[in-house]
Amino acid sequence: MSGALPGAVEGPVLVIGTGLIGTSVALSLRRAGVDVLLTDVDDENLRIAREAGAGRMLERDDVPVIVVAAVPPRLVPSVLARASADYPRATLTDVASVKHSVVRDALSLGADPVRLVGGHPMAGREVSGSAGARKDLLDDRLWVITPLPESGPEHVERVRALATTCGAVPLQMGLAEHDAAVALVSHTPQVLSSVLASRLVDSRPEFVGIAGQGLRDMTRIAASNVDLWSDILTENAGQVVEVLDGVITSLEQVRSALASGGRGEGTVRATLAAGVSGQALIPGKHGAERSDFREITVLLADKPGELGRLFSAVGVAQVNLEDIRIEHVLGRPSGLVALMVEPDAVPRLVDALKALTFDVRA
Amino acid sequence: MSGALPGAVEGPVLVIGTGLIGTSVALSLRRAGVDVLLTDVDDENLRIAREAGAGRMLERDDVPVIVVAAVPPRLVPSVLARASADYPRATLTDVASVKHSVVRDALSLGADPVRLVGGHPMAGREVSGSAGARKDLLDDRLWVITPLPESGPEHVERVRALATTCGAVPLQMGLAEHDAAVALVSHTPQVLSSVLASRLVDSRPEFVGIAGQGLRDMTRIAASNVDLWSDILTENAGQVVEVLDGVITSLEQVRSALASGGRGEGTVRATLAAGVSGQALIPGKHGAERSDFREITVLLADKPGELGRLFSAVGVAQVNLEDIRIEHVLGRPSGLVALMVEPDAVPRLVDALKALTFDVRA
Repeated sequence: MSGALPGAVEGPVLVIGTGLIGTSVALSLRRAGVDVLLTDVDDENLRIAREAGAGRMLERDDVPVIVVAAVPPRLVPSVLARASADYPRATLTDVASVKHSVVRDALSLGADPVRLVGGHPMAGREVSGSAGARKDLLDDRLWVITPLPESGPEHVERVRALATTCGAVPLQMGLAEHDAAVALVSHTPQVLSSVLASRLVDSRPEFVGIAGQGLRDMTRIAASNVDLWSDILTENAGQVVEVLDGVITSLEQVRSALASGGRGEGTVRATLAAGVSGQALIPGKHGAERSDFREITVLLADKPGELGRLFSAVGVAQVNLEDIRIEHVLGRPSGLVALMVEPDAVPRLVDALKALTFDVRA
Repeated sequence: MSGALPGAVEGPVLVIGTGLIGTSVALSLRRAGVDVLLTDVDDENLRIAREAGAGRMLERDDVPVIVVAAVPPRLVPSVLARASADYPRATLTDVASVKHSVVRDALSLGADPVRLVGGHPMAGREVSGSAGARKDLLDDRLWVITPLPESGPEHVERVRALATTCGAVPLQMGLAEHDAAVALVSHTPQVLSSVLASRLVDSRPEFVGIAGQGLRDMTRIAASNVDLWSDILTENAGQVVEVLDGVITSLEQVRSALASGGRGEGTVRATLAAGVSGQALIPGKHGAERSDFREITVLLADKPGELGRLFSAVGVAQVNLEDIRIEHVLGRPSGLVALMVEPDAVPRLVDALKALTFDVRA
């Protein structure tokens, strides 16, 4: 297309549904100069998206190269089947966070399996609503792509190009594989976080008052959008139930072990030890193992500029932070900051911080 | 005592057990100039503590004003009962993270209820081993104090002074209240984190590879010390079982709802909504409500100095950060940094960051 940046996906791209993800996809494609066509059953959504510069109205004689079904998961199958008939040469994809049920239903409604390549841009869990659409929402996010065995290589390649043009990182998986993976690493953790947080509702305020960083971390995603997650869990129910069964069985074993007194200690220890092993498997930044990093703790005064002073010192020392965690304690205006760095950088960073009178606990 | 800072607790303080917490308590008391007596059945531990400057050897004619039983929870009752007999005027306390069973057993072994005031310094979950003892370990930590109905006010006051002298923040609770509170906000979250992380052990590597910040947060405390947590859970088994029962029941309801197809959606929604309510009850920094803060997201290049440049800009703008979260994405050298600030500070901060060409997503 005229105006498209080198390497950008070929347009026109038709985005059906101008909600949060659809409009964000459209905006990021426009950023790359790609011709974007928009349509939505909701005139108001469509107007907002057009005024934000997300693309132009779909016209009768437009022939999209790619159709992106960015409608709620339940509507994706019929939208894809219809698009398959309307645009018999177009690559067909979607953005639903559950893939197997959605793609299977689309095929059964007549969508062309050669041209259908499902997708799941894994964009922030805490955003919802079309007002949150942004041209950079997908930057640096994973975009899982789930080709069928029948999918033509050119269609798979086109969906990959769609993802990279939007700034995302494409990752290819099978349909069931994707759904099992997100059930394990995203959907079941959401259920556990929500259930744990729900136990706080009727508890005494002074109990919640002594909560530390552990409970905060464990319940952060419990604040997520109820409508969105209700749909996701329902659509991926089979895979989530399978993971939940394992979790419930394990919790019941621990519960029985604790209730049985000292005799159950082996079970408790085995579960804790398996947790240590499992946690160590989670990749850190860029796939590095967490255990490669060392933690340095700094106690900061709680006043403007202290964090700036700290991180300036880190920058001056030419140390790259792998991760940061800030802890807070009830009733005291101060904070512990944990800095995760490469082991080699520890002496240099500790020396630099101590020289600037930081309260360092290496 | 000669050399003690104004407001410091009156010594001598006898610390029985020179492991991580005992030695840290002793070091922080010495920092305030308090006379500290040490004893341990382990000669090597005792030698290390003394060489670190944690105090002097307990002698036959020493008369401690306070005795701190810093031994493993299972040994606390006999140590406290023995100290009660040996030092008939001393205030008696401990540092075990479970209180009811420990104090009850101490009383049944003959400890004086007037002088016994249990304590629980809530110091970092990720430290263990005597080598980690530090004079500042307890700074700004909560130190729960659990007087008995019979406890003399002067003994309660002395344990409060012990806590503040160590740099901690004393908080008074009942025995059962403390145990129920930590079961809810600390022990059960630990079980859930460990169980969730344990499910990753036999999963496919590519599943864990798409893990996002949610799973990382949910499994961070699963890396905690197995010995320590096995003891804690076993000692507080009754209270943990009670909270776990509620969690398991709720998980089973969600599981059944998901397995029943569309009919179960009301249950799923209700659980998610209760989770949103519960999460909102957790106090933010200094007891402020989390909802008082706004989040600003910045996309940083992954190179040394970028975080320094960011936080310097925050400091120059005279904005106080309430919290920070850093996200990472597989396969791309960049990071999203979420900054939580007071709503009033948002426009000022956004303008300041944009002026310095930061990629801001308010």
